[in-house]
Amino acid sequence: MPAPTIADLGEDALLTRLFPLLPAGSGTLLGPGDDAAVVRAPDARVVVTTDVLVEDRHFRLDWSSGEDVGWRAAVQNLADVAAMGAVPTSLVVALVVPATTPVAWVEGLGRGLAGGCPEGVGVVGGDLSGGEHVAVAVTALGDLAGRAPVRRSGARPGDVVAHAGVRGHSAAGYAWLAAGRPVPDAETADGEGADAEGRALARAVRLAVRGYRRPVSPLVGGPAAADAGATAMLDVSDGLLRDAGRLARASGVVVHLDPPADAFGEDLAALAPVARALGADAEAWVLAGGEDHGLLATFPADASLPAGFRRIGVVGAPGEWTAGTVTVAGRVPSGPVGWDHFRG
Amino acid sequence: MPAPTIADLGEDALLTRLFPLLPAGSGTLLGPGDDAAVVRAPDARVVVTTDVLVEDRHFRLDWSSGEDVGWRAAVQNLADVAAMGAVPTSLVVALVVPATTPVAWVEGLGRGLAGGCPEGVGVVGGDLSGGEHVAVAVTALGDLAGRAPVRRSGARPGDVVAHAGVRGHSAAGYAWLAAGRPVPDAETADGEGADAEGRALARAVRLAVRGYRRPVSPLVGGPAAADAGATAMLDVSDGLLRDAGRLARASGVVVHLDPPADAFGEDLAALAPVARALGADAEAWVLAGGEDHGLLATFPADASLPAGFRRIGVVGAPGEWTAGTVTVAGRVPSGPVGWDHFRG
Repeated sequence: MPAPTIADLGEDALLTRLFPLLPAGSGTLLGPGDDAAVVRAPDARVVVTTDVLVEDRHFRLDWSSGEDVGWRAAVQNLADVAAMGAVPTSLVVALVVPATTPVAWVEGLGRGLAGGCPEGVGVVGGDLSGGEHVAVAVTALGDLAGRAPVRRSGARPGDVVAHAGVRGHSAAGYAWLAAGRPVPDAETADGEGADAEGRALARAVRLAVRGYRRPVSPLVGGPAAADAGATAMLDVSDGLLRDAGRLARASGVVVHLDPPADAFGEDLAALAPVARALGADAEAWVLAGGEDHGLLATFPADASLPAGFRRIGVVGAPGEWTAGTVTVAGRVPSGPVGWDHFRG
Repeated sequence: MPAPTIADLGEDALLTRLFPLLPAGSGTLLGPGDDAAVVRAPDARVVVTTDVLVEDRHFRLDWSSGEDVGWRAAVQNLADVAAMGAVPTSLVVALVVPATTPVAWVEGLGRGLAGGCPEGVGVVGGDLSGGEHVAVAVTALGDLAGRAPVRRSGARPGDVVAHAGVRGHSAAGYAWLAAGRPVPDAETADGEGADAEGRALARAVRLAVRGYRRPVSPLVGGPAAADAGATAMLDVSDGLLRDAGRLARASGVVVHLDPPADAFGEDLAALAPVARALGADAEAWVLAGGEDHGLLATFPADASLPAGFRRIGVVGAPGEWTAGTVTVAGRVPSGPVGWDHFRG
């Protein structure tokens, strides 16, 4: 018997199955089931952001499970809230799915949304529609708890540039899947079957593919950075060079990044086996790869960086380079610098 | 020269054109352009809802302009906020569009979002993605200003059932377009060219098609109903019978609707020429037609109905009929009662 689809079950029954999978959230006053939800906003300001994931643009159904897609949809929105210096409180989810979609896929999406949400964040509402392709539009809300929002535009010459989270993992995982290579199982990575090199590659591939499917954003770093005096901050979703350029442009400054080997030595080491196996360049993943959802922030030179952040460069004044420029090890990098959603 | 498309312009340039078209909103502390927006939530609770419009499910590009789609996407979300008894404050918009979409269509969408928003509501953020089909996911926020949210579940036997807004217009407009009939121009409706009957039909068709393309929800009625003591309320988006059934089920009551000629005489009269021309039943539009975004509410029997609401029935206790039943003129109606997004 084929697995039941949404068409078999119908909308109301599907929602009845879905609701219990979703996190309730500690700030939820009224959750799913009415025209709208009601969520605490203790600060009397609310931070709000929305991001959509579209099948065959942001994910492929053969590369990512429903759970993976739900996880990523949650994390990329939560990261945007954190990047303002706020604590996420809740999500609403608009889901477009073909009627032929298995019910289990949608249940997986619900579990993934739950998995991507830290303790206390609720999925408080949503909408479900038929459509030719899957699309998941998530809106996240957050609370500033008295903090000023940290914008992209406050970086000043002399500030330290710092980053929290991993770099290049998602791009490496994507490259592996795009090359059609199989993802090794846990046994290959950790068992006794393969040789040391084989196990190291398997572990690196699993790390990268997991980084692509279920990125982890250092969400607590956002409010911590705000408290530490961050002058500018953003979520690195479209690649470090491109997003650093946005910060530089908004702030009217130049961002000078340290050599990747210094700034991202750990990520380069972790991804080196994958890069070797694919004949690819791990530095390109680290500098230009998107969707790791780390936080890029600038701090006054004398600030103590909060836990999770490490120095990756310094802010300069325009002069030799125009405002908005990003240099790496003293030079303007050539090659692709990120992702335009329409021009690739 | 063909009209420029999104692919010609690119994402950043498109956003630069789009932002000035969007309303800023009186509660907006930080608008589009950063990772997230910041909006006032003076009540320290925020009302949040999301709804998605999908091409060829909720609109057709040959029946609705970008402006129409933006308008409807705004209104249907704002109505959900109002139906909780809240005042809408802001929207965020996730837009999926093929790269071949004309820039002018997206600009129209921006103007439509603005047109559908009452004074004071801002479009504070969004996301833009490529995709095979157009989809517009809007999330609306609102402020309760100290009111308790009005849920679906509070109706009590003896309450008056009341409705604000029009009924059946959107369904009639849809039926006209679905029949492939041309929409008369303003000259035909108001000029001297046609006979009286032709002018009346033209005016009725234009009213209905406008109701389909750009519904008007009685948004101020939401908070007014809450203030008048409404015991339950919802936005009628899937048809009166279906949504009244939801209210009845959530409240554990029976909803007895007055005969349509009494409850919706004005709407029936306004749509009569369209129904005659199509050989259709205006009562079915009024009772089962969706997407007018009127407000359905129940009030204590001794309450003064707020402006815009009129009595359309009474709440009964389960007994002869089970809880969740909706009767019309004392009988349970047969035939289609609304819309399931996957089973039609």
